[in-house]
Amino acid sequence: MKEIESVCIVGAGAIGSLFAGHLGSLVQAKVLARREEHAARLNAEGLQVSGKSDLHAGIQASTNPAELGDVDLVIIATKATAVEPSARTLAGHFPNATIMTVQNGLGCEQVVANHGDWPIISSVTFMSGVRHSDVHVEYELDTATWMGPWSEGTASYDVVEQVADLINRSGLKAEPFRDLRPAQWSKLLFNSSVNSIGAVTDLPHVKAFAKQDDISDLGNLVRAMMDEGKQVAAAQGIDLYEDPWEMNVKAVSHGSTGEDEYAHVFSMLDDVRNQRHTEVDWLTGAVVREAARLGVPAPIHETLYRLVKAKELSWTQGS
Amino acid sequence: MKEIESVCIVGAGAIGSLFAGHLGSLVQAKVLARREEHAARLNAEGLQVSGKSDLHAGIQASTNPAELGDVDLVIIATKATAVEPSARTLAGHFPNATIMTVQNGLGCEQVVANHGDWPIISSVTFMSGVRHSDVHVEYELDTATWMGPWSEGTASYDVVEQVADLINRSGLKAEPFRDLRPAQWSKLLFNSSVNSIGAVTDLPHVKAFAKQDDISDLGNLVRAMMDEGKQVAAAQGIDLYEDPWEMNVKAVSHGSTGEDEYAHVFSMLDDVRNQRHTEVDWLTGAVVREAARLGVPAPIHETLYRLVKAKELSWTQGS
Repeated sequence: MKEIESVCIVGAGAIGSLFAGHLGSLVQAKVLARREEHAARLNAEGLQVSGKSDLHAGIQASTNPAELGDVDLVIIATKATAVEPSARTLAGHFPNATIMTVQNGLGCEQVVANHGDWPIISSVTFMSGVRHSDVHVEYELDTATWMGPWSEGTASYDVVEQVADLINRSGLKAEPFRDLRPAQWSKLLFNSSVNSIGAVTDLPHVKAFAKQDDISDLGNLVRAMMDEGKQVAAAQGIDLYEDPWEMNVKAVSHGSTGEDEYAHVFSMLDDVRNQRHTEVDWLTGAVVREAARLGVPAPIHETLYRLVKAKELSWTQGS
Repeated sequence: MKEIESVCIVGAGAIGSLFAGHLGSLVQAKVLARREEHAARLNAEGLQVSGKSDLHAGIQASTNPAELGDVDLVIIATKATAVEPSARTLAGHFPNATIMTVQNGLGCEQVVANHGDWPIISSVTFMSGVRHSDVHVEYELDTATWMGPWSEGTASYDVVEQVADLINRSGLKAEPFRDLRPAQWSKLLFNSSVNSIGAVTDLPHVKAFAKQDDISDLGNLVRAMMDEGKQVAAAQGIDLYEDPWEMNVKAVSHGSTGEDEYAHVFSMLDDVRNQRHTEVDWLTGAVVREAARLGVPAPIHETLYRLVKAKELSWTQGS
């Protein structure tokens, strides 16, 4: 198996910048950027990583894939909502690359596969960073990225191990799985619930998400929604890697002080607050589609899916 | 049966002012107000009604029920959230009165009954008004108030007919029912759904509430929620007076232009936008409690109930 000597990161937001900055310290790192100005600054100044890592990487960046040549590994690190245009841009380029997707939710691999026959690695990441500028990212939460061969594609487990090894050597954390679905669905069910609930209530991840004292308490909804999602996973024979309810309880009991004022603002809530199209189609919507395909009832997921879509509608139809 | 010669309106918001202004043209009208200033202006200037009616009524107002003497009829026209403190104020007063409640939702009659043994008339109103000042209300939507003897109290149907007759003679519209529950539950199921959905999506009553083309469309949620509510009504042997889904379809197809920019802003949405405690406990919460009592599953009502409560929580816990 050929060694990985070059990578191209598509979409240098916080997650993409963390990959580019770290991997660029070991191999040649390229960035396919959306804005000319972003590419120009990366070419001129490289990428600075602070926080849990202290690194500087030289970067070859462009908004045109034809200018970047071929690479061994492409990591698509855009939001799920931007995978379709990104994959369209990649079509016909990087013929020898393996492509890794790191979006929240389900279905981005298929979007990529529609534009080329690259081997595809599925992944879900729990790391986080704060993007201070186009050329500076702070490495915040140093939790792992989980990865495995996309179950409907041609990537081998060997190449997944090779990529995980590279990521671990670069200072980030990765864990390879032969079958990612148990891990992917754990995170999916966690996010499809808490993200959509946060988006419509305007609540960050406060302790109320685990409160179950009264019939009106929010924890009852989170738990019922996750239980419903588990039935959808079970109907596909997926034995969850982690229990999403335990992930929820742990998350709200966590934090340096355990105080609600430091509660995590979900990405979907951040999108809603900024009136950006959310990833709900890939999260709650993905569970709804799988449930419908399998004939498993999912009234709570359907409810939250429709509410988040209606919330998006309110930006143009509210009065 | 004694003729109705005096009424006291508790809470002179838009609905209360419409009752006081109209009934005051036929019988002695009193207002139990919350603010001294409001009572003083009513005593000095009376109450002006414009719009669909053109009336002026003299009013005897006070913030203290002891100053108002006894009356034949008390109409409690506050929001559901204010019935408990209002009924507490009435305790020991108006010994010969029949009390009529006109709140949205279920349960206010019991709150009143906890503070005295008055005969109680249940009602639901579809009229609307715009309150221009403490002494001026505009009569807007001239639809009827439906009323019936509270099923757990001592009011007779005869007294309901007498009150309905008085209201009709005053220029408002009323319809007496021997059993109000079929009508009450029609409106309850309509409001428990559309009000709570509006509250969490920030959408007024736009056409999307009846759209069912795609699995993600909001109309599917409204319909599923109303179907669920109908099961709760059916389990009590209530044969709905109107179909809430048809009420919904009619409401969004209605309006002078049928355009979404004139869509109705639900009272619960108005409360949420002004960060006021909503009536959700008496609407969606009431359906949840009845469903639990009857052993009927109501996952969608539970979901919306918890989401609206969580939305209220976000005003103090959001960050």
